[in-house]
Amino acid sequence: MEKFLVIGERIHCISPVIRKALAERNPEPILQRAKEQIEAGADYVDVNIGPAAKDGEELMTWAVQLIQKEFDNVPLALDTINRAAMVAGLKAYNNSKGKAIINSADAGPRIDLFDLAAEHDAMIIGLCAKEGIPRDTEERIAYCTEMLEKAMGLGMDPSDILFDPLFLVVKGMQEKQSDVLEAIKQITEMGLKTTGGLSNISNGAPKHVRPIMDAVFAAMAMQCGLSSAIINPCDKELMDTIKTCDVIKNNILYADSYLDL
Amino acid sequence: MEKFLVIGERIHCISPVIRKALAERNPEPILQRAKEQIEAGADYVDVNIGPAAKDGEELMTWAVQLIQKEFDNVPLALDTINRAAMVAGLKAYNNSKGKAIINSADAGPRIDLFDLAAEHDAMIIGLCAKEGIPRDTEERIAYCTEMLEKAMGLGMDPSDILFDPLFLVVKGMQEKQSDVLEAIKQITEMGLKTTGGLSNISNGAPKHVRPIMDAVFAAMAMQCGLSSAIINPCDKELMDTIKTCDVIKNNILYADSYLDL
Repeated sequence: MEKFLVIGERIHCISPVIRKALAERNPEPILQRAKEQIEAGADYVDVNIGPAAKDGEELMTWAVQLIQKEFDNVPLALDTINRAAMVAGLKAYNNSKGKAIINSADAGPRIDLFDLAAEHDAMIIGLCAKEGIPRDTEERIAYCTEMLEKAMGLGMDPSDILFDPLFLVVKGMQEKQSDVLEAIKQITEMGLKTTGGLSNISNGAPKHVRPIMDAVFAAMAMQCGLSSAIINPCDKELMDTIKTCDVIKNNILYADSYLDL
Repeated sequence: MEKFLVIGERIHCISPVIRKALAERNPEPILQRAKEQIEAGADYVDVNIGPAAKDGEELMTWAVQLIQKEFDNVPLALDTINRAAMVAGLKAYNNSKGKAIINSADAGPRIDLFDLAAEHDAMIIGLCAKEGIPRDTEERIAYCTEMLEKAMGLGMDPSDILFDPLFLVVKGMQEKQSDVLEAIKQITEMGLKTTGGLSNISNGAPKHVRPIMDAVFAAMAMQCGLSSAIINPCDKELMDTIKTCDVIKNNILYADSYLDL
């Protein structure tokens, strides 16, 4: 098995610091967050510029080149609902260290992002959803299959798709968690890769409880086969959990110092 | 699903303090450790008196009555390879708060402990082993089935058996961990209960790494269905993990304060 793929989530326009830096084309805060995440063990850095309706193309191009130039062409996940900005980012992207990830398509209105992935030889995150929240495991698998068919029709390799089962908040949707975990298991058994926004599960929980919930859910999901997640790699408890799962699953070799590697 | 059953492991003759207290019939250190474990959330307290070849019957009787009298007949796991001591403990045991657990039988020379369990209406831990370490998942399931047949023949309820797949040390047996987890899954799918000495998995690892390994393995094992474990309930990280798994599995209701309950 391959080791778990960590996609760092901290360059996100929802953060006031990042939003301001993106608007002002100020490199410093963006490079700082990229650096922290790469040093903490992120394999990919997600770049979420938001809708960026006005100047999305120029903004995504700027951000991609800025980060890749500074960090030896670190692989990126490009994150925007602005299709033109996504295309611009893919054109600017240097794939010498790994394919770009398009974040994200779904089985509904955003399924045509698979065309972009095929055209630009990119990976893509496919949300197992169409309209709103999938009802149960079966609906997730149905959407997964629809996206898989679309991608195969375009000649894509299934290993270039990361299927996101849509993680749900525990507080309020406690009884739905087993559906999400079961979907990860079934998608994994189909030989496919999975990912997701892990911290969704602890939304609304007290601040000191969230890291514990995230870490425990990560371990349970990795036992079901979860092969990747979009997380804050600076959360040491979570990264330690991921490394330990990788050891127990025999994805990486045990060494007394494995948490420091 | 029922909430996870925590068996506290800290009254064990391997501890110099406890060994001395048992030898001298000194109540204080034993009651102190029982208290700490019960307050930390142990459902059962394990009482390991060792082989106690000389005076095992009297010693186990003393220990059982001492702890149950002080803590409102708290349920106990009786832990000794001295059969006469086990019988004496079962006779002295008050089951008003829960059946005694015999710790432990196996599918080999210790299979006749199932007779004691049936005779005294006790629960029993059944190690899925015969001679040495089981080779793989299949061997574990074979031993599980042998013990199940033995118990059913005696008229026991399968829910009174806790099957122990035999947790193995990660350091040195890394590639065997998936067998243990798979055995838990298969035993659970048979509708049976499971338990085990969790901290075995982190033996030999650096001291600061052990709690992380134990907690992560617990989460992975609980996702496979593990319904109980023999642990140190004073390890807060581990107990928080168990409570969080119980929430995610919908075994207990989420509340913002669930870690403090």
